Amino acid sequence: MNPLTDRPSPALLPMGFVDLLPGEAEAEAAGIAGVMEIFARHGYERVRPPLLEYESSLLSGAGEALAEQSFRLLDPASHRMMALRPDMTTQIARMASVRLSDQPRPLRLSYSGDCVQVGTAGRETDRQVPQVGLELIGPDLPAADAEVVAVGAEALDFLGIDGISFDLSIPALVWALLEEVPAAQRVPLVNALDRRDAAAVAQHAGAQAGLFLALIQAAGKADSALEKLEQLDLPEALAGHVQRLRASIEAIGKRVPGLKLTVDPADFRGWRYHTGICMTVFSTRSREELGRGGRYLAGNEPACGLTLRPQALLRVARLPVPRPRCLVPETLPQASREALHEAGYATVSALAAPESPGGESLSEATRALARKLRCSHVWQNGKVQVL
Amino acid sequence: MNPLTDRPSPALLPMGFVDLLPGEAEAEAAGIAGVMEIFARHGYERVRPPLLEYESSLLSGAGEALAEQSFRLLDPASHRMMALRPDMTTQIARMASVRLSDQPRPLRLSYSGDCVQVGTAGRETDRQVPQVGLELIGPDLPAADAEVVAVGAEALDFLGIDGISFDLSIPALVWALLEEVPAAQRVPLVNALDRRDAAAVAQHAGAQAGLFLALIQAAGKADSALEKLEQLDLPEALAGHVQRLRASIEAIGKRVPGLKLTVDPADFRGWRYHTGICMTVFSTRSREELGRGGRYLAGNEPACGLTLRPQALLRVARLPVPRPRCLVPETLPQASREALHEAGYATVSALAAPESPGGESLSEATRALARKLRCSHVWQNGKVQVL
Repeated sequence: MNPLTDRPSPALLPMGFVDLLPGEAEAEAAGIAGVMEIFARHGYERVRPPLLEYESSLLSGAGEALAEQSFRLLDPASHRMMALRPDMTTQIARMASVRLSDQPRPLRLSYSGDCVQVGTAGRETDRQVPQVGLELIGPDLPAADAEVVAVGAEALDFLGIDGISFDLSIPALVWALLEEVPAAQRVPLVNALDRRDAAAVAQHAGAQAGLFLALIQAAGKADSALEKLEQLDLPEALAGHVQRLRASIEAIGKRVPGLKLTVDPADFRGWRYHTGICMTVFSTRSREELGRGGRYLAGNEPACGLTLRPQALLRVARLPVPRPRCLVPETLPQASREALHEAGYATVSALAAPESPGGESLSEATRALARKLRCSHVWQNGKVQVL
Repeated sequence: MNPLTDRPSPALLPMGFVDLLPGEAEAEAAGIAGVMEIFARHGYERVRPPLLEYESSLLSGAGEALAEQSFRLLDPASHRMMALRPDMTTQIARMASVRLSDQPRPLRLSYSGDCVQVGTAGRETDRQVPQVGLELIGPDLPAADAEVVAVGAEALDFLGIDGISFDLSIPALVWALLEEVPAAQRVPLVNALDRRDAAAVAQHAGAQAGLFLALIQAAGKADSALEKLEQLDLPEALAGHVQRLRASIEAIGKRVPGLKLTVDPADFRGWRYHTGICMTVFSTRSREELGRGGRYLAGNEPACGLTLRPQALLRVARLPVPRPRCLVPETLPQASREALHEAGYATVSALAAPESPGGESLSEATRALARKLRCSHVWQNGKVQVL
């Protein structure tokens, strides 16, 4: 897409906000509905938190990590600051720990909605970000991690997206190791890690250089990555992360045999609220992330979630087949319209129709009108005729 | 609903913003999906404008009427003010006249999304307002008005909402008559009209008092209201409004025989951008407005639209039947899960299941777990068992 030519007036909409046209909007809605249907089949129940909340609530606790991505606005009713949500996971966590605290665990929740992010200065990114996701709140078990991955993979499969892989990481492990590095070296080390620049990592990681380089080199298929990680001399408090990673990978393998799993142990991106295993979803059809998720604390409770990005799914999913359009006279009775709807047609009324010739054949004027209104069929003399 | 007791912490969310819980959120989503399905059957195609736009674009032209209901925020990327949309009709009009200007007319568009309104100080109203609507852009015809009413009525019927009536009005006529009144009297007259306070109307309307009182008194069933309106001595420029009202009412009667139609000629509320016939939708099941719409200008083009309010529909619609939940062992193969989904069950994995007794009967532990997770069925020994 060329942003200079595809948008007639670049000044019309703020950077990162777009109009979805017919076709695009339908595909997005169908994709979200499909994902939510799969979530529902596995017992996930829909909730809908509001678009904005008080800053003090939305951006506290785990939400602190979101502060710099949030637009704020003043509530004239309370004279308090509100923030547009940049992410929904923290809202679901709040609902789970307050409104739904008396519901039995495991609590399975799903959601879909728009988030708004400030974006990065100078970078053209989406700022209105639809999300569709699920959260499994309660059990801190490998089987719970596996369920989140399995249901996410099934949703992508349902949309006709193939070549799926889940890339696993443990950002909490990386952040813990970064604590061991002298404070002055952390920012350059984080940047070096982000680029997977081995030389710069070695330069800034000091005594931990061997460990950080080993994390980078361990990246790859899940089995081989696990083997490499298990040979590392990690501090005892962190070795548990690797043990859990193996248990979760084994649980995923049992639940979704054949799913492609990779591990990128040097990955530490994303929201800072994750406490354990994290996952990023890719398809071989695209370089773009299709979603991400992982383990975090919902209040004081263990939770694992996955958020898919409908805008990314849209670019690789099988598109819904538009229903055929049938031109009908404005005077067609409702019962006949309903019969056409039952048969799968959209009825398009000719509000100011040309006179029907009355015969079996379609007049040129009718054909022209049908073509203009993108109708493939015309209702005439009590039946559907192909244009 | 008692706002003091129904919300555990009133300070948690800003006034007018709510969490929808499981059940509520599902009902809202199902209602929106149902309405959009009916719109699609009649050839309306979905578009999705962004949640926010530059103030200069969103609140110009017809959008000026929305300015006082809009939250504004600064775009750090462009240093320009943006506004959260309080309404979607003006966005659809913008899309029709810019991005979709080369599409043939009539252009039929549908949309659903959240709007955010500043609200009225001291009044507890929803401020996050979901909307679902349709716009018919191009023909300025009674048949077009009738199509919008017919498709809206069908959508409500599809949701199981009965006792529907459409209350028609012509705010543009009232505003034009208000221009005839001395400026100093207009505000008290508008307030008097809003209360349908005949004495106060007579006091402030001066020479126009007879006309304004006649408008109030004409309210009622469409046929009798039309007769009364046609006897009024309206300025010639305004008499056309009444002629068009009759033509539209006749077209609606042909398209939806039996639909209850009323006329309230003194009604002038709502957005100020309407130029012709307006409609407010009610059901005998509720005093609340279910939606409203009318005729306006999309850029320079005649257009007629209707916006339904999912939150109001939700309170009167037939609720979707939740799918039965079946407790399954975590190890259940995917093929068995899919068979249960096909049969209409949601599968709920017992992540840390009690040992199965192996026999035909359900153990007490299994029963207790199923009950806890609100499952009506349990998968055991290769089949579904009722709890």
